[in-house]
Amino acid sequence: MFKINDNYLKLPGSYLFSTIGKKVKEFTTNNPDKEIIRLGIGDVTLPLAPVVIDALHGAVDEMADAATFKGYAPDLGYEFLRQAIADNDYKARGAEIAIDEIFISDGAKSDSGNIGDIFAQDNKIAVCDPVYPVYVDTNAMSGRTGEYLVDSQKWSNVIYMPCTAATNFAPELPQETPDIIYLCFPNNPTGSTINKDELQKWVDYALKVGAVIIYDAAYEAYISEDDVPHTIYECEGAKACAIEIRSFSKNAGFTGTRLGFTVVPKELKCGDVELNKLWARRHGTKFNGAPYIIQKAGAAIYTEEGKKQTKEMVAYYMENAKTIREGLAAAGYTVSGGVNAPYIWLKTPDNMTSWEFFDHLLNTANVVGTPGSGFGPSGEGYFRLTAFGTHENTKRAIDRIKSL
Amino acid sequence: MFKINDNYLKLPGSYLFSTIGKKVKEFTTNNPDKEIIRLGIGDVTLPLAPVVIDALHGAVDEMADAATFKGYAPDLGYEFLRQAIADNDYKARGAEIAIDEIFISDGAKSDSGNIGDIFAQDNKIAVCDPVYPVYVDTNAMSGRTGEYLVDSQKWSNVIYMPCTAATNFAPELPQETPDIIYLCFPNNPTGSTINKDELQKWVDYALKVGAVIIYDAAYEAYISEDDVPHTIYECEGAKACAIEIRSFSKNAGFTGTRLGFTVVPKELKCGDVELNKLWARRHGTKFNGAPYIIQKAGAAIYTEEGKKQTKEMVAYYMENAKTIREGLAAAGYTVSGGVNAPYIWLKTPDNMTSWEFFDHLLNTANVVGTPGSGFGPSGEGYFRLTAFGTHENTKRAIDRIKSL
Repeated sequence: MFKINDNYLKLPGSYLFSTIGKKVKEFTTNNPDKEIIRLGIGDVTLPLAPVVIDALHGAVDEMADAATFKGYAPDLGYEFLRQAIADNDYKARGAEIAIDEIFISDGAKSDSGNIGDIFAQDNKIAVCDPVYPVYVDTNAMSGRTGEYLVDSQKWSNVIYMPCTAATNFAPELPQETPDIIYLCFPNNPTGSTINKDELQKWVDYALKVGAVIIYDAAYEAYISEDDVPHTIYECEGAKACAIEIRSFSKNAGFTGTRLGFTVVPKELKCGDVELNKLWARRHGTKFNGAPYIIQKAGAAIYTEEGKKQTKEMVAYYMENAKTIREGLAAAGYTVSGGVNAPYIWLKTPDNMTSWEFFDHLLNTANVVGTPGSGFGPSGEGYFRLTAFGTHENTKRAIDRIKSL
Repeated sequence: MFKINDNYLKLPGSYLFSTIGKKVKEFTTNNPDKEIIRLGIGDVTLPLAPVVIDALHGAVDEMADAATFKGYAPDLGYEFLRQAIADNDYKARGAEIAIDEIFISDGAKSDSGNIGDIFAQDNKIAVCDPVYPVYVDTNAMSGRTGEYLVDSQKWSNVIYMPCTAATNFAPELPQETPDIIYLCFPNNPTGSTINKDELQKWVDYALKVGAVIIYDAAYEAYISEDDVPHTIYECEGAKACAIEIRSFSKNAGFTGTRLGFTVVPKELKCGDVELNKLWARRHGTKFNGAPYIIQKAGAAIYTEEGKKQTKEMVAYYMENAKTIREGLAAAGYTVSGGVNAPYIWLKTPDNMTSWEFFDHLLNTANVVGTPGSGFGPSGEGYFRLTAFGTHENTKRAIDRIKSL
């Protein structure tokens, strides 16, 4: 008789966004005259940039002609895209990344989850708390996290690094030594960042204890301050200890277009074994490439015009971030994030729990956000708003909150 | 210190297509005047159908307008596509599959590999020999296959089901009871099929011994004979024991466009646990959907015009299959496949090994095929030719072989 992977049965329900959905649905059913404004989910709203649209149409036309038709893509992705990434995302930042250290994928979420495949089950992970749930859930699925403890809302075999007001919403080096450290800067959900000197401390620590850092830089395009690193490879020694995961979702609005990449430097080794070779094998065996037309679309954002247009998109969302941050601060809320990230993290007022504030905001201002406790126990008492709406809706939402 | 998944180190090199590539490169370097014809790899050559091109352009235009822009897709895939699949691929064949039993993906290769995630490590797999390498390699990566035995070219903990001339290139029920059975019909690499009664025996067997069947039907569109089932769900009881994996690569030429789907019926259970729920959790956690524009392209092939155009593409390739099959038979070769599949499987002449015949064909006819031994030890003494070339090149290749 076949047996299932019963680690899946240990997972607590994926309640966060479904619970939000249910609550919003119930509210709209009972209040059909009220107009909801959603600042909850991290999905973009602006259409794809003109340069991307042109590239897509052009690539579709190539697929219509036998002379230019493209079948299976190269395992690692097309060189035109990997070269553009190496030049613009790395060389321009002072980091030398070879094109065969770059693996094109269908997005950062897939890579965040799949990267665990190349590591033994017997590794102890460290994660920020609060955290993007995919890191923990995918490790739980592979049996790496022990048991889920309902009371503490934690897994028994995971090192949690609290990111609270006391730590400026960034993690501190853990007491217990981890094998795999997940870091995400600019951070989802708190919007926090650390500067280059602080990130260098993590790299030095990983090198010292023999840990690997999985560095999620999906929000890199939102960095506005000079001393915040855009890639972990700006730090010395990072190529020997860090894997970096990047996305086209938030800088170019590809949430529904799907493109990302992961960098696995050849210097990153376990004994004699290059992790680059393991990931290449995984990529070549369990994945068959991102679509050619999408890879062409991704390359378009690295042209001069593409850079200009994506910068404008990011600026549009960051204008929203400013509206939210400043508006809430003026209304007396304690806010952070929103300077180098599209996420604003706010302290719930009057000692409300995250969910109490969710209900309060939904019922009184008809605004939907995300309860901080949904991202981990240290998110309790916090709330996330996102900058991905329209200017108009964002302003109206903040005006409503201010007038409460 | 972090530890790697050392199951990866047990994998023998992925030598097949790289060795072919090296040999071809060496030949062309030494013989710059010779023109090579490639009938080796299973990649398509015809451009995408007009109806697909139109759908792609239309969807790209939607992505250019905020009013019709699409962000994150629904977890399982867009309903318009899942409904078209349920109606056309299943209901029309007498199989009732609900749309929440269909999971849209980026292709059959990803799904073939990733499906292993929802099963315990402690399952014994059975595979055809010869076989599409992804089934075995991905199970090896997850530690399910024991040790690789160089002498026999087999894994110690895998049940191999020989598919040879003696079995009409189809597997027989194994002596040892497996937990997970991989079946692929029409078969890659041999092009063989079994009829509905024969497939029903596999379903009955799986139900009896408590095995699950992973049924790869990527080549379903090439079936020309009436008694060959298009889906395993034509068999009674299959919904309680089988997962079916499908592709848009070969019926619609999507090898570089990337789209597939997997059916996990709710009746398929381990104890009380529905595998559908496990796969839904995996899909929602480690994948973020196929691109909207690609899902629209996929839906286009289910329109009346789309069905007509994809049928014409398949017919074009099957004309090649006929050219190869009949041409080789006339030249005295023993051939099979090519009737319900784009693959022709031929016995190497004069007791040549698969690689000896590869070299012979390359050197004398300048034609590239795939050595049968590359797909498993029972493929030794056989050779695969594919029907995915142009009519002209296919005819020229066969004329060259005939004149040897």
